[in-house]
Formats: sequence, C-alpha cells, structure tokens
Amino acid sequence: MEATFEVISEAELARVNATYAPLTEAVRDLIDATIRTQADDALIEQARTAIEAVTRSLRSQRIRPSGVSYVVDGRPLPLANAAIGPCNPIAPPLVVNHEGGGKCWSEFVLGSAYEGPPGLVHGGVCALVLDHMLGEAASQGLTKPLFTGTISCKYLRGTPLGPLRAEAFVDHTEGVKAFARGFISGASGITVEADGVFVKPAWARDAE
Amino acid sequence: MEATFEVISEAELARVNATYAPLTEAVRDLIDATIRTQADDALIEQARTAIEAVTRSLRSQRIRPSGVSYVVDGRPLPLANAAIGPCNPIAPPLVVNHEGGGKCWSEFVLGSAYEGPPGLVHGGVCALVLDHMLGEAASQGLTKPLFTGTISCKYLRGTPLGPLRAEAFVDHTEGVKAFARGFISGASGITVEADGVFVKPAWARDAE
Repeated sequence: MEATFEVISEAELARVNATYAPLTEAVRDLIDATIRTQADDALIEQARTAIEAVTRSLRSQRIRPSGVSYVVDGRPLPLANAAIGPCNPIAPPLVVNHEGGGKCWSEFVLGSAYEGPPGLVHGGVCALVLDHMLGEAASQGLTKPLFTGTISCKYLRGTPLGPLRAEAFVDHTEGVKAFARGFISGASGITVEADGVFVKPAWARDAE
Repeated sequence: MEATFEVISEAELARVNATYAPLTEAVRDLIDATIRTQADDALIEQARTAIEAVTRSLRSQRIRPSGVSYVVDGRPLPLANAAIGPCNPIAPPLVVNHEGGGKCWSEFVLGSAYEGPPGLVHGGVCALVLDHMLGEAASQGLTKPLFTGTISCKYLRGTPLGPLRAEAFVDHTEGVKAFARGFISGASGITVEADGVFVKPAWARDAE
C-alpha cells in the first residue's frame, strides 16, 4: 500500500479534537465495560444490537481512506496510531511530552484492556509503550523519518495496572543510527527497561 | 492487588463463547468504524450518546472483579488478556495453536486499530504479538508459571496491515530459564524476528 499525505487545517484539527476524540473516549469506556460485564444474555444481546447499529451509522457517511498520513502545520498528526492516536480507541492514548535534546516522557493510565497476568499489564503492552517512546525520542517527536532496527526490553518486576510513567532519551548517535533508552515506572519504581536502535531510511539519507 | 482464581464450568465457558465473545467482536468492528469515520458532527454526537447508554447498561448488572484468573477444566482461561482474550476488544485476538515440543503458531489479521506508519503495523504491536507468542511457547500454552525476563525484536522490514502469521518455539532451556525464538511473517516473508528469556518464578520452583 502506498502512503499518501493529506494536509489538514488548524480548524479541521480543532474539529477532530472537539468531535472525534470524545467519540473515541466513549468507545474506550465501552471497551472497559465490555471486558468486565457479567450481565445476562438478554442485556448482552440488546447491547450488541445497539453497537452494530452505531457501527453501521458511522460507516454511512465519509470514511477515512487507509494508508493516509495527516499533517497539520508541518507536524505529523497520527490520528489512528495504535499508541498515541486520539481517534484510536485501543491507544491509551499516550500523550508524549518532549523536553528537547531527544528526551521525552509520558504519564498515563492503563486499565483492564491492557491486562496480561491478573492485575498486571501484559508484558507485550509494556513493549508497545517502550517501542513507541524510544521511537519518539529518536525521531524527535516523529518529525524525522526513522525505522526501528532492534528493541530489547528487560522486565524487572510486574507492572501494575493503573497510573504509570514512561521516559525515553537518545543515548548517542552513530551515523544513520540513533541509540535510545527508556523505562516504565509505577508506584514501586522501574518495572521495565528498554534500549533500541533506530535507523534513518535510505530515501531520507539520499534527500539530504 | 492480589490475584485470585475462579474455576468456571464448561457450561459457563459455552455461555461466554456464545454471549460475550460476539459482543466483543461487535465492539472490535465499532473500533474500526470509530477510527475511520469522517461523519458530520451531528451523527458523531448521536453515536457517542448511544455508546454511552450501552456502556451504562453493561455496568447496570454484575461486573467482573479485577485481578481474577479464570480456570476451566484445569486450563487457564485468560478472558481479558490484551493479546488473546475473547472478551477483550483490543485483542486481535490471537488464537494460538500448540504443536507440542514448545512450538506454536497463529494466523491472524491486523486492521486499522493496529496501525503505526501509514499502512503498516505499529512496531510495538509486533512486539506485543511476539512477546505473547514466545511466552506461549515457553509456558506450553500458559500452563506453566513463567515470567518474561528479556525480549529482543529485530525489525527486518515493515509489517503490512492484513493477514499475518506468527510462530514461536523453545530453542533450549537452562535450569529455570527457557530461551524462546519466533517471528512474524506476511506475504513478502519474515518481517520481525524475536528472541526472549523466560524465567520460572521462585514460588513455582519451591513448589516442585
């Protein structure tokens, strides 16, 4: 699939934040209720029918095409991104704060949707968060084209569901490679550490 | 949070599969529609109101408590697991096939909810899939208690959204450690490789 770029205006961005982000938040809350409900068959059947009607209505008008990157004011706007997308209900979403010098952090809450062992975050979800955070550090907020080369996660202890913090920074660079490090921490300290190598693609090297 | 175990009957498992799994599938479809809709403000507002009503109704009866592991016929049943849970709308869900000898595989489809770069699976979602598959191999289908020690992913090329396959196997064991390897492949071959070390917790060693 070819990736295409669509520039959207600040006004359209404001509409996305006012209209689509609250819809996405409502779906996140529905996901939690779906995981935890033990309601009887009649109520579940009613809920499923109602959800299917909403899905049909959302598809009855214009649909965002696949493979489109949105750009606003020169910045990438990953609306559907699985980690940070404001329009993707499976994204926590992470809100990433950049401090300059390739350092960034995020504070976020992971609820029942992200569970692995009972009461703990799935180890693979920790890897998803760290892959994204290290990539944000290495690409300076996704403003530079970079691909993940390798990423390694070291699990020190279980990560509890609930409020968490992640940090990432660029340790050093060597030519086309950026070496990033980071961690997730909970109330009892660091739970998972990660390091990764991010590589500038050939087409971006040629463009310089 | 303390983890507790609840044994459920084969009849209750049949009810989960007949009632809750289709509800979860309907929410997965709603997630896709939510990501891709570009409907006008009035329709989105109507959809949000309808979703909030469904969420309230799902919470109006019994709610599954947090931190509970379900067991059926001696096997763990991770209903809410972020990778394989039949009741978790953010799980693809992976259906893992075990071949014995610590080898397993899964064929699955990743749609718009799992996107990173346009048209490609988020690298962190690949890490989530591989963390889970290697853990399944090392724990022989989650029947043995094991924690992830480390996991490393090597990205060979972008993983396209759509139909994919993952495989994992135990390479060798050393005392309390199992060394597992695996990969994700798409139409054009292997896209991500992984290796990981899984460790038997001290309480499980003492119990032997």
